[in-house]
Amino acid sequence: MDKHERLGNALRGLPVDRPPVWFMRQAGRYMTEYREVRSRVSFLELCHTPEIACEVTCQPVDRFDTDAAIVFSDILPVLSAIGREFTMEKGIGPRVPEPVRTEADVKSLVRPDVSEALPWVPETIQLFRKARPDTPILGFAGAPWTLFCYLVEGKGSKDWLEPKKMLMCEPHLAEHVLGLLADVVGDYLQSQIDAGAAGVQMFDTWAGALSRADYERFALPAAIRAFERVKGAPKIFYSKDLSSILTIAKKTGADVMGLDWRTDMREARELLGDMPVQGNLDPIALYGPPDTIGDKVRDIIRAAGPRGHVFNLGHGVLPTTPIEGVDAMIAAVKAWRWD
Amino acid sequence: MDKHERLGNALRGLPVDRPPVWFMRQAGRYMTEYREVRSRVSFLELCHTPEIACEVTCQPVDRFDTDAAIVFSDILPVLSAIGREFTMEKGIGPRVPEPVRTEADVKSLVRPDVSEALPWVPETIQLFRKARPDTPILGFAGAPWTLFCYLVEGKGSKDWLEPKKMLMCEPHLAEHVLGLLADVVGDYLQSQIDAGAAGVQMFDTWAGALSRADYERFALPAAIRAFERVKGAPKIFYSKDLSSILTIAKKTGADVMGLDWRTDMREARELLGDMPVQGNLDPIALYGPPDTIGDKVRDIIRAAGPRGHVFNLGHGVLPTTPIEGVDAMIAAVKAWRWD
Repeated sequence: MDKHERLGNALRGLPVDRPPVWFMRQAGRYMTEYREVRSRVSFLELCHTPEIACEVTCQPVDRFDTDAAIVFSDILPVLSAIGREFTMEKGIGPRVPEPVRTEADVKSLVRPDVSEALPWVPETIQLFRKARPDTPILGFAGAPWTLFCYLVEGKGSKDWLEPKKMLMCEPHLAEHVLGLLADVVGDYLQSQIDAGAAGVQMFDTWAGALSRADYERFALPAAIRAFERVKGAPKIFYSKDLSSILTIAKKTGADVMGLDWRTDMREARELLGDMPVQGNLDPIALYGPPDTIGDKVRDIIRAAGPRGHVFNLGHGVLPTTPIEGVDAMIAAVKAWRWD
Repeated sequence: MDKHERLGNALRGLPVDRPPVWFMRQAGRYMTEYREVRSRVSFLELCHTPEIACEVTCQPVDRFDTDAAIVFSDILPVLSAIGREFTMEKGIGPRVPEPVRTEADVKSLVRPDVSEALPWVPETIQLFRKARPDTPILGFAGAPWTLFCYLVEGKGSKDWLEPKKMLMCEPHLAEHVLGLLADVVGDYLQSQIDAGAAGVQMFDTWAGALSRADYERFALPAAIRAFERVKGAPKIFYSKDLSSILTIAKKTGADVMGLDWRTDMREARELLGDMPVQGNLDPIALYGPPDTIGDKVRDIIRAAGPRGHVFNLGHGVLPTTPIEGVDAMIAAVKAWRWD
């Protein structure tokens, strides 16, 4: 079974020989090859230079022979497209120097043509398809609510006080911004499929900041609106706090549910019926002994069952992850055979 | 209905006129009275001086006429009792200068007599009962897994890499430490009930760091072991990430389930049957307009229903919370009447 068929089948609930495997942030600092590239270019230069972005996208494919690539980028480019530049500083993370807090701030946002404003990721996807035609590539974007968090707070946060204050105090303004983000995210994901992505993943990383009522009022409609604009390839929804919205996450319109490492695979399967799932090994399991990693991988594959499972971590791989741990995970998935 | 009856009934699923209300960290920096005291003494001096701890425990009772007090303390004193001092620095949070990582480290831990090692909280409870006899007081402690996190990492963390590495690489050592913590936590909670606490809450704040499999293997048995030692008053279990363990949290042996703000009240009620619950307003709702706060409070009370609900926030109140928001929450709960 080739990689295109294996990934495509798993994303659609069709038979596979074994689950396909890729993992979030698979092109990242835990790889020497990646660190070597990053010693020459900044994170944002890398994102904005398709040739180099393609090079690092290939690195984990070449090193581990993963069943899919994920295009090298970040969840935040949509922010610069709507008029808010962001920075990425070592040890600090993302910063939006001019966060959006007031009605005047909101009025300064623009509705871009994504093909002009965000050309790099589709170009990287096209380059990758020529460079590694045997391997399917996935696209991605941040979900509207998660982008809204950074846009309004201006940086990462534990509490997301400012974005949540806007929901509470200026709900209509918040809904307007979320709607704009949804449209741009949708167009951006579609541009990645048009460039040849075999699927797209939307990261609603900070879903867990919200109560259920607020998620349903603000974040969910925006996620639905984004996904409604996307056709032609499977849509994966991921949240780091999926457990708290698991019973409603299907409503996003996703085809595949990405499970974080805390979400119990068997319970998720029962709740989601025959919806394909992705996940969900704890990234920190990769710091353990190879045998333990293998056991955990097999437990997850068994719990997920033979149809509609893409093996992945339950969150991005950590920069200090031992590469031997990644090797053990990949080997265990590849050794699996469904009858 | 007096406060003792209202809280006692709610914790036991018996009829109440309205839900009792208290809230996590109700004695805290959002109050001027508290900040005034803290300008004179450090956090740990405050914890270790029952007269002053009693004074700040009284502050929210006097200011808001809450239906319960929670004894002023921290989740970490158990660490110093087993042989690891910790510090609390402004803007840094807890630090354990000598974290426990190796077998030698583990051997240096001690099994204390809690009445000698941790006298302050029971004393504070006794002082409070004399000072405010009309108001019941709750005791608390960190859960074994959450204490293990700080003990092994040595500080707060997003990933809890070191404690999770110990589970992965030295599971028997980890189980030994968790067992010690469980016994001391259990004795410590019991000492608070013996001093007159009307109930005790165990905070498994970092439950969400673990996969379900690891929670069930390591954290849950330790939580059970701690609660097994506790008799004579209702036991409340709280986790900031309850959603991910909601279907198994009853196994802790808790009498009452504390819901974080992301856990949907109606779904929790369906899952937990007639088990009393506590919660779960989003603390950041208190930054909103009074009408919105009132609506959210009433939505939660309606979703929880007439029996077995203690109104609370879904997490600790934030230091910058406007006191008017707290007033609006308290007023909305107190205005409610069940027929």
